[in-house]
Amino acid sequence: MRILIAGDVVGKPGRSILKEYLDKKKNEYDFIIINGENSAGGFGITGKLADEFFNWGIDVITGGNHIWDKREMYEYLANNDNILRPLNYPMGVPGSGYVIKKTKNGDKIAVVSLQGRVFMPPIDCPFAKMEELFWEFGEDVKCIIVDFHAEASSEKVAMGWFLDGRASLVFGTHTHVQTSDSKILPKGTGYITDVGMTGSQNGVIGMKVESIIPKFLTSLPQKFEVAEGNERLNGLDIEIDSKSGVCKKIERLDLSKDDIAAF
Amino acid sequence: MRILIAGDVVGKPGRSILKEYLDKKKNEYDFIIINGENSAGGFGITGKLADEFFNWGIDVITGGNHIWDKREMYEYLANNDNILRPLNYPMGVPGSGYVIKKTKNGDKIAVVSLQGRVFMPPIDCPFAKMEELFWEFGEDVKCIIVDFHAEASSEKVAMGWFLDGRASLVFGTHTHVQTSDSKILPKGTGYITDVGMTGSQNGVIGMKVESIIPKFLTSLPQKFEVAEGNERLNGLDIEIDSKSGVCKKIERLDLSKDDIAAF
Amino acid sequence: MRILIAGDVVGKPGRSILKEYLDKKKNEYDFIIINGENSAGGFGITGKLADEFFNWGIDVITGGNHIWDKREMYEYLANNDNILRPLNYPMGVPGSGYVIKKTKNGDKIAVVSLQGRVFMPPIDCPFAKMEELFWEFGEDVKCIIVDFHAEASSEKVAMGWFLDGRASLVFGTHTHVQTSDSKILPKGTGYITDVGMTGSQNGVIGMKVESIIPKFLTSLPQKFEVAEGNERLNGLDIEIDSKSGVCKKIERLDLSKDDIAAF
Amino acid sequence: MRILIAGDVVGKPGRSILKEYLDKKKNEYDFIIINGENSAGGFGITGKLADEFFNWGIDVITGGNHIWDKREMYEYLANNDNILRPLNYPMGVPGSGYVIKKTKNGDKIAVVSLQGRVFMPPIDCPFAKMEELFWEFGEDVKCIIVDFHAEASSEKVAMGWFLDGRASLVFGTHTHVQTSDSKILPKGTGYITDVGMTGSQNGVIGMKVESIIPKFLTSLPQKFEVAEGNERLNGLDIEIDSKSGVCKKIERLDLSKDDIAAF
Ligand SMILES: [Fe+2]
Ligand SMILES: [Fe+2]
Ligand SMILES: [Fe+2]
Ligand SMILES: [Fe+2]
Ligand SMILES: [Fe+2]
Ligand SMILES: [Fe+2]
Ligand SMILES: [Fe+2]
Ligand SMILES: [Fe+2]
Repeated sequence: MRILIAGDVVGKPGRSILKEYLDKKKNEYDFIIINGENSAGGFGITGKLADEFFNWGIDVITGGNHIWDKREMYEYLANNDNILRPLNYPMGVPGSGYVIKKTKNGDKIAVVSLQGRVFMPPIDCPFAKMEELFWEFGEDVKCIIVDFHAEASSEKVAMGWFLDGRASLVFGTHTHVQTSDSKILPKGTGYITDVGMTGSQNGVIGMKVESIIPKFLTSLPQKFEVAEGNERLNGLDIEIDSKSGVCKKIERLDLSKDDIAAF
Repeated sequence: MRILIAGDVVGKPGRSILKEYLDKKKNEYDFIIINGENSAGGFGITGKLADEFFNWGIDVITGGNHIWDKREMYEYLANNDNILRPLNYPMGVPGSGYVIKKTKNGDKIAVVSLQGRVFMPPIDCPFAKMEELFWEFGEDVKCIIVDFHAEASSEKVAMGWFLDGRASLVFGTHTHVQTSDSKILPKGTGYITDVGMTGSQNGVIGMKVESIIPKFLTSLPQKFEVAEGNERLNGLDIEIDSKSGVCKKIERLDLSKDDIAAF
Repeated sequence: MRILIAGDVVGKPGRSILKEYLDKKKNEYDFIIINGENSAGGFGITGKLADEFFNWGIDVITGGNHIWDKREMYEYLANNDNILRPLNYPMGVPGSGYVIKKTKNGDKIAVVSLQGRVFMPPIDCPFAKMEELFWEFGEDVKCIIVDFHAEASSEKVAMGWFLDGRASLVFGTHTHVQTSDSKILPKGTGYITDVGMTGSQNGVIGMKVESIIPKFLTSLPQKFEVAEGNERLNGLDIEIDSKSGVCKKIERLDLSKDDIAAF
Repeated sequence: MRILIAGDVVGKPGRSILKEYLDKKKNEYDFIIINGENSAGGFGITGKLADEFFNWGIDVITGGNHIWDKREMYEYLANNDNILRPLNYPMGVPGSGYVIKKTKNGDKIAVVSLQGRVFMPPIDCPFAKMEELFWEFGEDVKCIIVDFHAEASSEKVAMGWFLDGRASLVFGTHTHVQTSDSKILPKGTGYITDVGMTGSQNGVIGMKVESIIPKFLTSLPQKFEVAEGNERLNGLDIEIDSKSGVCKKIERLDLSKDDIAAF
């Protein structure tokens, strides 16, 4: 099965280029996953935006530390299976960390949202939680896609090795910068440290330069605004063997609006 | 002028592939820079290794948080201009944060080692220190290469914009994973968030998987050993206009030993 | 000279007990200093509140990481010498980090607001900044009071030793819990790791228990509200020799409203 | 029952003053608990030292982040019930986080070692782990003593409220500075944010000033040595009602060798 992944969609510029790509290409994919934690002005997501994403044909929206930014999402997450918050938030937290779905062809696919702990809020262990989840899945689910939303490269690379042969794909998010290390690990798991961001490349990880530089110069609180122009879609084009769950192809996407228009 | 950059050289596997590349290619370059903070068994560098690197034709070795790991380096740094520690360590710290050299063709080139502060030890502001350095350089130095050794993608991207039009090249190090965002910024500065690592890709950022995974599972102290096999050289192939200091070409290098043998 | 210090005043409960104490006791003191970074609902301070504090007879208000919470303070800090932001915020930041004043008796006194870096935002080195300040002060200023607003006990104790014999008093703030280690260091500097908080003891460092516990249980964002009831004034009663600047007495204050009423 | 608590015993100076106090006073106590994570030269503890502590009449040794510093302790912790590592280290970690013992009078008493997560390594949630432990204890254990080894005052105060009425005593450790907020919470739990350190007060939290100040001035790695002289025993003198588990008295101890000699 062929799967599209789009990295952290940041604000209107991110949504706009994503829409252009989907309009041209969505029919080529069996399944579409985006990370939506920054889609509402860079901070969180709203129910309205999530609905819109589903209308566009997106199958699952994964989360991250910003998924909680808009209070309304607590209820939306609790009531909607196709948008995830990281699995390893503690018991009692609203929403689900994974979902099992069927592709257009009837293949079963599990999507997991997971979050790192190095330089991030203290939540449950992502490694232990994945271990538990495999017990829960048993032999039944072959195709497992994991969005590992984390800061430290060491934690992300370690998760790749930890899940090699047990997940179909482990893709990193959160740094908003695409890494060039996409590969298929020895036991068949597709891996990349970070898929990057879908949004404007005129800023600093999606936000305006003129609001970020003063932050680093002064350490004073700043209001951040979404950057505009030079949008790029960052993501992955994936091929997975439905029977075995093995990753057959992992291709990085890093496309401008012109690139998309030219398809 | 054509410049070679090699990202954090990790242990013997990193040194070994670096040597193979230099044996084949060093004559093509006018200037060669490597980040050496992990060259001694993953932790720091020794004077003996630094001497060896210079013998191989390397012009400047840049540092990072690990440059202090071997105590002997305090003296070596103080006595040797061609190995740098980050510029923004406070007054009184041994060694220098930059060096001005001449290439084979007699072109002046400044190399700066700089370190971030987000999720890293509290040192002086890297942005303010660069500002001071430009005052010191004046109009005299056109070609300025900056190794920004930092963890957070936001701090690195911000530094790129901050130095655009004032440095020839800003390359990130420290995460040990190469990013795919190499580009020339609007005012002529070459930029990449991280050049990646020169070492074994069989591990977790250069160290053995079996020593890292338990760290994440237990939070207990661990001894880390250098990973072996599947070595890759990560770095950059750069073309800079000597007159203006403008970056003309930035090409990512991500080479296996087989790739190098095939040259 | 006799000096009153009150630790971080938190919201209305903090202001209310502070007022009761001042009404009874302010005439006994030659100089009064409070830390005001949490006086406006727990987050920052307003110009109106600062004005009120000065009307009550407070001489100097010191700051901390929360001093920037209300945007209006940028201008107020720039225009008012008697309210401080930490000295070691970088160049270009509004406001001043110290002030030199005269007490009722005409004695010169310098008050410094300083902030730590361990587990706190990356700003300039507090140790180096104090060193510079002593150069600036020269022999002229004998009585120097330092509010060191910091998280880590090690950084605070180290600052005490670093300033011993050079400052009259180094008092810690920020943890909102009073330490019992008030003492006069060998060379004559009064020292305490933290003076504690002036506010309600019914909460968690001044905020309601029911808003804080969920934070620790879930890592989700929470809205914090100021706790009420069981107010206590935490601070110091200090005696300094005006001629030499040596601390003669350091007495901890930890008073309930009943204690104050009974004076 | 009357219980003695001694805060983090640091190196030989800490052990020496502890021994002097025990020689004079141990017969007055029904139960003795010390935090031993810094007893071996400031870093960890050895089996030999633990044996010695037990010979002196200490009933339980609690741990913290430094309990793992000496590799030999992995086995010692696994084989000895009376020395604890924090309960909320993950599954698979050697040793136990609590022990249930009998006092001289036959009263049952549980001692728990627990560790915070704010500014500390990412381990399991201390709040959730305590909740589980209460289920395990059931109605059977009335007297429960918790050493909460944590950095942030907010996390410690919150734990006090969380356990009020369910534990007999919650005492903080790790900052090495005693707080003055010892109290009995409304539902009967004795509480203090930090009991402080048992060791030399001539240093910075037990280590020599001349090794710590350079650390803050330069951010370079330093070797720390145990400070000497001006030893103080910091701890608590506790009275608990054996039937109900309610704390009847919480008295801070902060004693010099002269104080002890004068008993
Ligand atoms: Fe994001
Ligand atoms: Fe994120
Ligand atoms: Fe490195
Ligand atoms: Fe590094
Ligand atoms: Fe405060
Ligand atoms: Fe503060
Ligand atoms: Fe300790
Ligand atoms: Fe500790």
